[in-house]
Amino acid sequence: MTLFFRTVSVEDAVTAACSIAPLTAVADLPLSAASGHVLASDITADIDIPGFSRATMDGYALVSADTIGASESLPAMLRLTGRIGMGAPADRDVSRGTCVYVPTGGAIPPGADGLAMIEVTESIGDDVLVKRPVAVGESIMMRGEDFSRGSVVVCRGTRLAPGDIGALAAVGTTRVPVRKPPVVGIISTGNELVPVGEIPSGGQVRDINSYLVGAYLVSQGCIPEYFGIVRDDRAALRRTLDTAIDRCDAVLLSGGSSKDDRDMTADIIRDAGEVLVHGISIAPGKPTIIGRARGKPVIGLPGHPASALVVTLVIVRPLLSAMTGQLERGLMTRPAILAENIPSVKGREDYVRVRLADGKAIPEFGKSGLINTLVRSAGLVRIPAGMEGLEEGEVVEVILW
Amino acid sequence: MTLFFRTVSVEDAVTAACSIAPLTAVADLPLSAASGHVLASDITADIDIPGFSRATMDGYALVSADTIGASESLPAMLRLTGRIGMGAPADRDVSRGTCVYVPTGGAIPPGADGLAMIEVTESIGDDVLVKRPVAVGESIMMRGEDFSRGSVVVCRGTRLAPGDIGALAAVGTTRVPVRKPPVVGIISTGNELVPVGEIPSGGQVRDINSYLVGAYLVSQGCIPEYFGIVRDDRAALRRTLDTAIDRCDAVLLSGGSSKDDRDMTADIIRDAGEVLVHGISIAPGKPTIIGRARGKPVIGLPGHPASALVVTLVIVRPLLSAMTGQLERGLMTRPAILAENIPSVKGREDYVRVRLADGKAIPEFGKSGLINTLVRSAGLVRIPAGMEGLEEGEVVEVILW
Repeated sequence: MTLFFRTVSVEDAVTAACSIAPLTAVADLPLSAASGHVLASDITADIDIPGFSRATMDGYALVSADTIGASESLPAMLRLTGRIGMGAPADRDVSRGTCVYVPTGGAIPPGADGLAMIEVTESIGDDVLVKRPVAVGESIMMRGEDFSRGSVVVCRGTRLAPGDIGALAAVGTTRVPVRKPPVVGIISTGNELVPVGEIPSGGQVRDINSYLVGAYLVSQGCIPEYFGIVRDDRAALRRTLDTAIDRCDAVLLSGGSSKDDRDMTADIIRDAGEVLVHGISIAPGKPTIIGRARGKPVIGLPGHPASALVVTLVIVRPLLSAMTGQLERGLMTRPAILAENIPSVKGREDYVRVRLADGKAIPEFGKSGLINTLVRSAGLVRIPAGMEGLEEGEVVEVILW
Repeated sequence: MTLFFRTVSVEDAVTAACSIAPLTAVADLPLSAASGHVLASDITADIDIPGFSRATMDGYALVSADTIGASESLPAMLRLTGRIGMGAPADRDVSRGTCVYVPTGGAIPPGADGLAMIEVTESIGDDVLVKRPVAVGESIMMRGEDFSRGSVVVCRGTRLAPGDIGALAAVGTTRVPVRKPPVVGIISTGNELVPVGEIPSGGQVRDINSYLVGAYLVSQGCIPEYFGIVRDDRAALRRTLDTAIDRCDAVLLSGGSSKDDRDMTADIIRDAGEVLVHGISIAPGKPTIIGRARGKPVIGLPGHPASALVVTLVIVRPLLSAMTGQLERGLMTRPAILAENIPSVKGREDYVRVRLADGKAIPEFGKSGLINTLVRSAGLVRIPAGMEGLEEGEVVEVILW
């Protein structure tokens, strides 16, 4: 499928990008290092969790039938036959008329079917007064209530959040199979670029895109590899692209911003492999290229920093998620009330930077070459291709950076 | 201030925790490694950005007065006197009646005050026809328009997002002064605990909290250091606490869940230093301890995993933010419609886990010992201390994990 010279929709571009996503290899990480990684296979419970019925409060395990009708004035009186230690097995039974003290988290002895929390009891020598009825199952977490043996605890494709890591700990997962984070090469092209450490002279600018895009990749759990600046020289760019393809799982070419540069980038990707998409109905970001070389995705980003970031978020991010088999969680968004009209062109998907203040989204109509609006803005508002704009007062979902 | 034996409000607890936060040291990181770190000092622009007036489109730099009244039928005709190369200085002037080709991002020559994008022009030999009027400043980003020399580009206390990193690149910041991420020791206590790699026998459970809390710390940019499980033995716990204080910036004691264990934890923190808070009006998480030893915060977390995570999010997170001088960005939240009533007790701040589905927040009324609700839930709904609950249909802000 070569869509070259035809501008494609954002949806088709994302589909094309995801269709060429190679899955990264699986690595077994220690549990302490797995947070934020994408799980490569379902993890099941090796045992019932908890492995025994546990007290959820400090109190007395008892037979609930013994407490029917118990009250402050007419408490049930039970004989205390022992105490269960934390971490110890329940080594004694509870029979009618007796009870056993169990601390929070301790094992409920056989025979008991409820627990009177200590606050509703009174201890008198070897006897315990229970001052209200205890229901069956009260203050007990039953064996297997959390996870039953063999059940799936965390699904393949989950980006592991703290709660997932806790669940993996519960079921004894010391080594976690995860997809390796994609290593993503970044090449900046353009005769106008100088390294960040230099003072640009007339006509020159510093290489912003490498670091801007690299930082976004880090925020998405990927590993950027920086190949620096290549002047607009076909042979040099092709050599650097080949090296990057060798060493990385995907390559981003942060393109020259002029038409000649963009055409050169497309030519070189085509030389090295194929160009699937050249031009997307998106603003900013129209001159984006989606290609592939030696089985690896090669994306040509637009030259303006804000454009490059938008395309990285809208097009590259789903590609990278596909490379780790991540179940799509979607972008992080939050609703806000649009503070001004945003005009748009039908047939093109627009992304406008917005600040957030007091629940309002305030558009930053800056030129796409500006960096200061990236610092000030909280994220983007999307205007779908089918709309001619959004109106002040509408509720919009702000895609957070 | 010892508030021991008096349950304090969440607000007071957070204030107490932040009041004992020591700032971490400053480290200079390479720009490529600074993403997600907290900036330790304001960064100012070393030069005007851009350093010269730039074209924002491919086109012809000209004197705008020459295009007054220009139209398709009566275009302005200008003599093309040269082309500016990418990265080259603007080495020729534009005078009345002439124009110079400038690619996107190229330098605008002296004398020009506007640019006709190529789409509205026609080239005939050495002449260029401009078919509509060009406004002063059109398609030009002025020198210093993005950042003027000496102005603050990114503020101290900012957790560096991709756009911030791009701005730092623009102003030549190759080494970035950031606060070192806090190293946070985690000690699990409790005779019932066994390491994750073991099969628990009757009465035993695996050490979930170390990994659950550790993963949350990682998500907040901190570095957890794991000190394993200490049995309920005062001398051993004190020794491990001392080691952890030596090696870390703060220490979390994931407490025994029974009252005896909690009291022991408080005693040991008091022995090592002082206890500022013992008991917070929060559910889950009431038995939390806030203390300090040798100038370092020592927090006693409740034993139930969900309780430990809630306290880490509500109390420990602001403490850690204060340790890096982070400007408070607040928790990530999103609004949702509450799907069921949530009862609560006045005078206590409640945090209820919720799932999110179709814009609704569905409470997970699980026992706080359950892990599966942590996996399923998207975050927490807070019921302020002054309220007796929330009602179905109310719009609530869900605090995302």
